[in-house]
Amino acid sequence: MKKSYTAVVGLVSGFLILIISIMTSGDIRNFLNGASIAVTLGGSCAALVVSFPMKELLKVPKILKLLLKKGEEDRTNLIGLFADIAKKARRDGLLSLEDDIADMEDDFLVSGLQMVVDGVEPDVIRDILTLRLETTERRHRMGQSIFTKWGELAPAFGMLGTLIGLVVMLSNLQDASAIGSGMAVALITTFYGALLANLIFIPIASNLSVQTDEEMISKEMMIDGILEIQSGTNPRILEEKLTTYLSPEELIILKQDRNTAAAAEELSYE
Amino acid sequence: MKKSYTAVVGLVSGFLILIISIMTSGDIRNFLNGASIAVTLGGSCAALVVSFPMKELLKVPKILKLLLKKGEEDRTNLIGLFADIAKKARRDGLLSLEDDIADMEDDFLVSGLQMVVDGVEPDVIRDILTLRLETTERRHRMGQSIFTKWGELAPAFGMLGTLIGLVVMLSNLQDASAIGSGMAVALITTFYGALLANLIFIPIASNLSVQTDEEMISKEMMIDGILEIQSGTNPRILEEKLTTYLSPEELIILKQDRNTAAAAEELSYE
Amino acid sequence: MKKSYTAVVGLVSGFLILIISIMTSGDIRNFLNGASIAVTLGGSCAALVVSFPMKELLKVPKILKLLLKKGEEDRTNLIGLFADIAKKARRDGLLSLEDDIADMEDDFLVSGLQMVVDGVEPDVIRDILTLRLETTERRHRMGQSIFTKWGELAPAFGMLGTLIGLVVMLSNLQDASAIGSGMAVALITTFYGALLANLIFIPIASNLSVQTDEEMISKEMMIDGILEIQSGTNPRILEEKLTTYLSPEELIILKQDRNTAAAAEELSYE
Amino acid sequence: MKKSYTAVVGLVSGFLILIISIMTSGDIRNFLNGASIAVTLGGSCAALVVSFPMKELLKVPKILKLLLKKGEEDRTNLIGLFADIAKKARRDGLLSLEDDIADMEDDFLVSGLQMVVDGVEPDVIRDILTLRLETTERRHRMGQSIFTKWGELAPAFGMLGTLIGLVVMLSNLQDASAIGSGMAVALITTFYGALLANLIFIPIASNLSVQTDEEMISKEMMIDGILEIQSGTNPRILEEKLTTYLSPEELIILKQDRNTAAAAEELSYE
Amino acid sequence: MKKSYTAVVGLVSGFLILIISIMTSGDIRNFLNGASIAVTLGGSCAALVVSFPMKELLKVPKILKLLLKKGEEDRTNLIGLFADIAKKARRDGLLSLEDDIADMEDDFLVSGLQMVVDGVEPDVIRDILTLRLETTERRHRMGQSIFTKWGELAPAFGMLGTLIGLVVMLSNLQDASAIGSGMAVALITTFYGALLANLIFIPIASNLSVQTDEEMISKEMMIDGILEIQSGTNPRILEEKLTTYLSPEELIILKQDRNTAAAAEELSYE
Repeated sequence: MKKSYTAVVGLVSGFLILIISIMTSGDIRNFLNGASIAVTLGGSCAALVVSFPMKELLKVPKILKLLLKKGEEDRTNLIGLFADIAKKARRDGLLSLEDDIADMEDDFLVSGLQMVVDGVEPDVIRDILTLRLETTERRHRMGQSIFTKWGELAPAFGMLGTLIGLVVMLSNLQDASAIGSGMAVALITTFYGALLANLIFIPIASNLSVQTDEEMISKEMMIDGILEIQSGTNPRILEEKLTTYLSPEELIILKQDRNTAAAAEELSYE
Repeated sequence: MKKSYTAVVGLVSGFLILIISIMTSGDIRNFLNGASIAVTLGGSCAALVVSFPMKELLKVPKILKLLLKKGEEDRTNLIGLFADIAKKARRDGLLSLEDDIADMEDDFLVSGLQMVVDGVEPDVIRDILTLRLETTERRHRMGQSIFTKWGELAPAFGMLGTLIGLVVMLSNLQDASAIGSGMAVALITTFYGALLANLIFIPIASNLSVQTDEEMISKEMMIDGILEIQSGTNPRILEEKLTTYLSPEELIILKQDRNTAAAAEELSYE
Repeated sequence: MKKSYTAVVGLVSGFLILIISIMTSGDIRNFLNGASIAVTLGGSCAALVVSFPMKELLKVPKILKLLLKKGEEDRTNLIGLFADIAKKARRDGLLSLEDDIADMEDDFLVSGLQMVVDGVEPDVIRDILTLRLETTERRHRMGQSIFTKWGELAPAFGMLGTLIGLVVMLSNLQDASAIGSGMAVALITTFYGALLANLIFIPIASNLSVQTDEEMISKEMMIDGILEIQSGTNPRILEEKLTTYLSPEELIILKQDRNTAAAAEELSYE
Repeated sequence: MKKSYTAVVGLVSGFLILIISIMTSGDIRNFLNGASIAVTLGGSCAALVVSFPMKELLKVPKILKLLLKKGEEDRTNLIGLFADIAKKARRDGLLSLEDDIADMEDDFLVSGLQMVVDGVEPDVIRDILTLRLETTERRHRMGQSIFTKWGELAPAFGMLGTLIGLVVMLSNLQDASAIGSGMAVALITTFYGALLANLIFIPIASNLSVQTDEEMISKEMMIDGILEIQSGTNPRILEEKLTTYLSPEELIILKQDRNTAAAAEELSYE
Repeated sequence: MKKSYTAVVGLVSGFLILIISIMTSGDIRNFLNGASIAVTLGGSCAALVVSFPMKELLKVPKILKLLLKKGEEDRTNLIGLFADIAKKARRDGLLSLEDDIADMEDDFLVSGLQMVVDGVEPDVIRDILTLRLETTERRHRMGQSIFTKWGELAPAFGMLGTLIGLVVMLSNLQDASAIGSGMAVALITTFYGALLANLIFIPIASNLSVQTDEEMISKEMMIDGILEIQSGTNPRILEEKLTTYLSPEELIILKQDRNTAAAAEELSYE
């Protein structure tokens, strides 16, 4: 899996911006407060444990790894792959695909093509693959909803911490000199809650959502391709049809690839 | 019913975090105020009584028991069960299932298979089971919407309590020394409202929603399985089809079970 | 129409809780302010007049009467009714239902069965009844949306009143002793807005919405029953099918009724 | 077009309530501030110009005229009209409708009946009329979304104005006597923003939305009627079917009309 | 591409209004603060980098150019174009369209008509064009969601900046004279966040959304037109059908064009 560190770069630069902003205007030690972190992060985690099954929450570390995942750049490769398979299938029959399947990595693609080789009815293949796609999407959306909920709970517990601080301070107004620092400490939990939500949880939920959308499109493209191969569509037409799923940028890449391939072919004929 | 105490653990630890946070910074007695609880909890309950039929509100204790319910871990068992039934149905006919039905616990499954035994048309079975599924879902969503609404009303009544406190305090500004404690008391109802909503009501609504989603998937899987058994599908194909409903984690469990079963079978042949 | 006073009890107890809370902490006269009520209630009513056609607003008193309406407890009776009609229809023909229709109260049921007696096509009956159901729902949702909108406008005008109070007070800061009472008066409109919205308007909207949902389910059940009677379904199967619409609680009532009926029948045979 | 001034009455009375409330508690001149209006109204208009195509914004005066439009009271007349047309069509053939069409005002009705006269296929008529209905709805929803967006932008620019006022005031704290009036001026933009949104823009958006809903129902009713006329439905059945679109209030009016008509007919026979 | 500068005019005039408002009431230098811009804009950009794939964010400059794009005024031309094509297709056969296609600019139209010339099945053409339309829409919605998200993140980071400023100020309350300016600086980030969101990001997202809606309607119109041409519809009927997509304003333009054309034709006959 190729990795992309843009999400990490975003997180780190976001923190740096805030830290620099704090250090240029005041003392950063005023912003470090273990109790505030405990209330904001601990409290929101406790509420998450009530909100979701533990086995879903235990997947959070695995979900976080997805942030490093490189995007859907292989959609152009997929078209080439389907064109090759379609050619072979028309030349040597569907059964000849057995060997190619063994070499593929994508589970979804493998199980779909295997059903084609096994001679399963097109309608059944479509049903099963669509069901798998929905099961996958539902699982991914669960992961996103954990972060979305966290992004709602963190500011809420930040506010709870601030209310605690305010009540404590207001109950001891005798010492006027402590009012300022009391309010400062109270506001820090609000700061933590807003920070966790807006720099971490909400952006992560958004990132996961975009990834899932892209994955679903790729899978829909695969279902289309698999069914076209089964029905013995002309490879060139299949290729044209699948390019419909590409963005203009991907189309340009695809055309460059083809030109390179054509040039290489020409060279090899010289 | 196996029990899961994670939701209770979450609730208790959330309260502990807040209590410890309060005790380390101030006097917890400042946070105990019967009148504030009366306004926040009593007021929101009164508004709930207006919002929902009494017979739905009376189900709240029963709904709360659902928080202890162990998740959908029996989806893998269900596949084995359906495979066994399918084998028996093909060997001994659909009527032979009568006895097995008597041993089953799940009402939904029993009524579905009973219709199969009774020779009801597939379309009618699908209609009736889908309708039952929808009726069940609607009932569950009602329970969730009570907690969702409560999670909206509690902070609103918390704010009402704070407004009462502020108006009372501002009307008696002569005694400057009472301002602080007056505001502190006023803020406590906001604190209660936010606490009830974010640690209890909203997480419970989310928990119930996830449970309902899972139950609906299991029921859809049952409908699929029941109809496949009626149509006399090959048990192996039925099994493959139903695994589509499993998450990758459940799939791994299923494969382990099978390997264990296969190993056990081998052993028994030695 | 049997009446249910739970909504009224909820409203009254909600007000009592707030009044007691006010009286134990301060002077309730500080919370009575004609101008504040005028701004909050009058202003939001003016905005409602802009938002909705007058003829819909004039239905508000009629809609409020719905709050006293007893819930859908007659779904179990409906099943018995349909079973009786089905028996008669199979025994004496559809035309024999003419007399029974005359005794029924429910308009929807009457018009549906009348079409059956008149020999209208099943598809046409379904279309017309579904259209009536949608027309009814749309009308009910309009009533709810008035209260939902009111629940949004009341706090907004409460805030407008508070802004007026604050601007007036801040423009006359010379008299420091008036600041407190000025702010107190300013906050009362916010208090009224939040009170009207959260204790009255939003809960009423919710109550109406639940009632409409229930009514729609009953009507869908009637459509199903009417069409089954027309197609001459076996009364026992019709009964089983319609029980699918019942909640578990209603099912228990239905079974008790049947047992009582069976016991009574047995007794009468002794 | 009959006119309805309720929306105007609502707007005027809303303003009166607020003006009286201001005048009884303070000096209304404190609430008049050209710069505040410029920021709130001018700023939100500038943002609207970015948000929507100019040609849509230029329709705003035309849209505002819709507020004076009398509601859908002609649905009962429409039923009579359709019954008459149906009778004539059955007696003299569809071609005889040509003359009646010339007298009608409603564009939608005219184009639909013209297609019937021209012998266009029912499916094509349904497609074209449904498409027209959707085009009309989309255009209307655009007008509503302008006011909805304005209702969001006005408070936002009100807050921006308040922030400007606060920053200006806080930067010049030396003159303590100016703090109050500074804050008062700052708050006025918030007041304007909330006023514009909650008394004008949001209610107008709601009003337009209800009007569109009603118009769409009338148009759906027309499509139904046109297609029934083409298929030569019995006028009495057509009439019964179209009454399904009426609210109970309209039904009562319809029945009164019929009784009057019947009475008149009887009289004319005497 | 004809250009429209209304969006730019809106942005500039919005800024001017705020700048003039600031300058008339205070010193604009109090509103210029590099650190505040860094926190609000830099922080929200960092969160955007976490939220979206980099390759989508890099399209932002290209998306901004769309703000200058002139609206959908060519829908009337499109109708003339389709009428011409339909005439030619009926006269000279579908193959004769090959030359016209070469002259067209719109990719979507070209690929659709090319499929018609190539004799692809109508269903396949509809599927492929609909898929292309959905792919295009999805891509456009992604661009909008970047600005929508930015419009949420900017105020959030503005608030974070204000919290930083408040905590710093409250921690150093000794110097009472610095309180005012400290709070002023703290509020500026909130001001920036609200300004960026409400004058720039949210209006741009709205602008893009309206553009996409319009483009989708034009494309749906093209699909309709292409399929009608393939099925050999009468040019006059095709023209009538496509006018259904026009707004009343466009219809008036179309009629003027036709009158002018008819007048010109008449002239040419003289």
